[in-house]
Amino acid sequence: MSKTICLSVDAMGGDFAPKALVEGIELFANNNPGKVSKVLLHGQEKLLKPLLDKLPIAAQLCEIHHTETYVAMTDKPSQAIRRARGSSMWNAIRSVKTGEADAAISAGNTGAMMVLGKVLLGMMKNVHRPAIAASWPSPVGHSVVLDVGANVVCTAPQLVEFAILGEAFSRIVHKKQNPSVGLLNVGTEDVKGNDIVREADKLLRGAQLDINYAGFVEGNDISIGRTDVVVTDGFTGNVALKAAEGTAKLAAMVLKDSLNSSLIYKLGALISRGAFLKMKDRMDPKNSNGGLFLGLGGLVIKSHGGTDAIGFANALRVAQRMAASDYMQIIQQNLELFAGGQKDISS
Amino acid sequence: MSKTICLSVDAMGGDFAPKALVEGIELFANNNPGKVSKVLLHGQEKLLKPLLDKLPIAAQLCEIHHTETYVAMTDKPSQAIRRARGSSMWNAIRSVKTGEADAAISAGNTGAMMVLGKVLLGMMKNVHRPAIAASWPSPVGHSVVLDVGANVVCTAPQLVEFAILGEAFSRIVHKKQNPSVGLLNVGTEDVKGNDIVREADKLLRGAQLDINYAGFVEGNDISIGRTDVVVTDGFTGNVALKAAEGTAKLAAMVLKDSLNSSLIYKLGALISRGAFLKMKDRMDPKNSNGGLFLGLGGLVIKSHGGTDAIGFANALRVAQRMAASDYMQIIQQNLELFAGGQKDISS
Repeated sequence: MSKTICLSVDAMGGDFAPKALVEGIELFANNNPGKVSKVLLHGQEKLLKPLLDKLPIAAQLCEIHHTETYVAMTDKPSQAIRRARGSSMWNAIRSVKTGEADAAISAGNTGAMMVLGKVLLGMMKNVHRPAIAASWPSPVGHSVVLDVGANVVCTAPQLVEFAILGEAFSRIVHKKQNPSVGLLNVGTEDVKGNDIVREADKLLRGAQLDINYAGFVEGNDISIGRTDVVVTDGFTGNVALKAAEGTAKLAAMVLKDSLNSSLIYKLGALISRGAFLKMKDRMDPKNSNGGLFLGLGGLVIKSHGGTDAIGFANALRVAQRMAASDYMQIIQQNLELFAGGQKDISS
Repeated sequence: MSKTICLSVDAMGGDFAPKALVEGIELFANNNPGKVSKVLLHGQEKLLKPLLDKLPIAAQLCEIHHTETYVAMTDKPSQAIRRARGSSMWNAIRSVKTGEADAAISAGNTGAMMVLGKVLLGMMKNVHRPAIAASWPSPVGHSVVLDVGANVVCTAPQLVEFAILGEAFSRIVHKKQNPSVGLLNVGTEDVKGNDIVREADKLLRGAQLDINYAGFVEGNDISIGRTDVVVTDGFTGNVALKAAEGTAKLAAMVLKDSLNSSLIYKLGALISRGAFLKMKDRMDPKNSNGGLFLGLGGLVIKSHGGTDAIGFANALRVAQRMAASDYMQIIQQNLELFAGGQKDISS
């Protein structure tokens, strides 16, 4: 028996909204028939209606919920929050609160999403701070890295909460059985790192959680896929994710330059063109689009702001998988185990 | 008028020591005739003598300083330090202290080098902690990132000192005129980041240093080469550097896999083989080998532990360029300006 799933989309968020988003819905629905029964499309009707008129599958699935205002991508966090009430993003997330939808998706302003998520949905029981989880290509599929930007400073117990949240994400979205969890550090010996990661390491070893904890991992282990989940604070995670993105871009650029540097290389490149497309596909951040605000009292999925239709379809797939699962329930056991242990220590 | 330069090499440090290192000296001397007048080779004579017998240029340049003991790569930091006294690494660094050599180079245990550097050479005036600086390929040559692992926690004034040290490194080793300096953060707006980076940003703007400070940069800016120098704490820098290395390896692996996935792609790859070698050369960490312990009272260059002869020759070039420059003198002006300003605040 499968759940009837309704997704709520902020149709106005992102650099190519609403067009790329509505096309993404069409693509997702086409590739995943029957997986979602309804999409609430929050945004300006005069823009959305003509788009749906051209996309028959999306038109059948979508219900336009007209919203006049929206949060601009260029808004500073403080502006974005002031403008957020009654915006398409606000209404998209509120639909999860009211129970109309199972998950909200936006490609809009991350800071505003974070604040609205907390204000409208509250926190999950036994979680103190939400984390943004990102998927990362690896030789064995995908790694999950969290936090990648919600918390620039984290305590050791927060890192343990992230481990619990990320482990369940890997299970559900990447279909990993018993995913391994690593804690990001500057070395793998137990004397390495700062006080917070060493304390988190002790907590993870001692907490009797139902988690396959693998100890410390290093920056290069993320792309190698040494563990399925990599836990870190939002400062380090954000820098690591972007450093990796920058390096992937540099590699692509250097490859292109090198192949363009002689006629004979160009000929060879033409012959192996399919291989480069394959490579692009595997390294493409679009294919791992759909970050998640883990730890909120409801499901909120963050799509990359610069996403196209393919990327947005991937974010919808993440939302659908999370919504179809018992995510909220399955992590409660570990969260309660950990919260109980922490209480014992402090009492 | 050029200085007469003497380099001091720990011939026993690194995964492929001493062979790769002595071959690296031959290669360096061959490509840079007259740049160095002497190399003190610290290590076991019975291993070094036969190697030099086969390498005429290195043999002419090198003076073997027999040392029986050495620090093993597999030693834990605490073991390494206990074993360090009287080792080839100890003697290599001591030669800088005694004035026999202008710079010491080792591919050995980083932790031990750091401690020996501090014990034997002390700190540079007005610098509180040494930083390890690494070079990173970018579309415009190389960026310098520091710290990449010496200090897992840093204060804001330390980050300012790193900016001063890194700026001079970029000038001397990468021959950049008026290099730009960025401070690594999770966004470029001034509200972003933690207290330490925001405080360091204020200090860098207010300190009237003779530095081309460009404000905050993000993880992806490192590979893009948005600034010539990227300043960060040793935890974040280490993770970012390794995340980038891991991604470069993943990209190479995915490219190889894709090209091997069909006969026709393999044919194309054969035709454009030269382009892949070009790419490998530009992305190869060997070509930016030669990290530096900046801030010590003498020059100590860290070569990658897994280096081959080419990589070690690059580390020697870094050592030679630093030794030929007035590094110690040219940064004192900025360091004194900053130290003076800090004193004014605290008094």
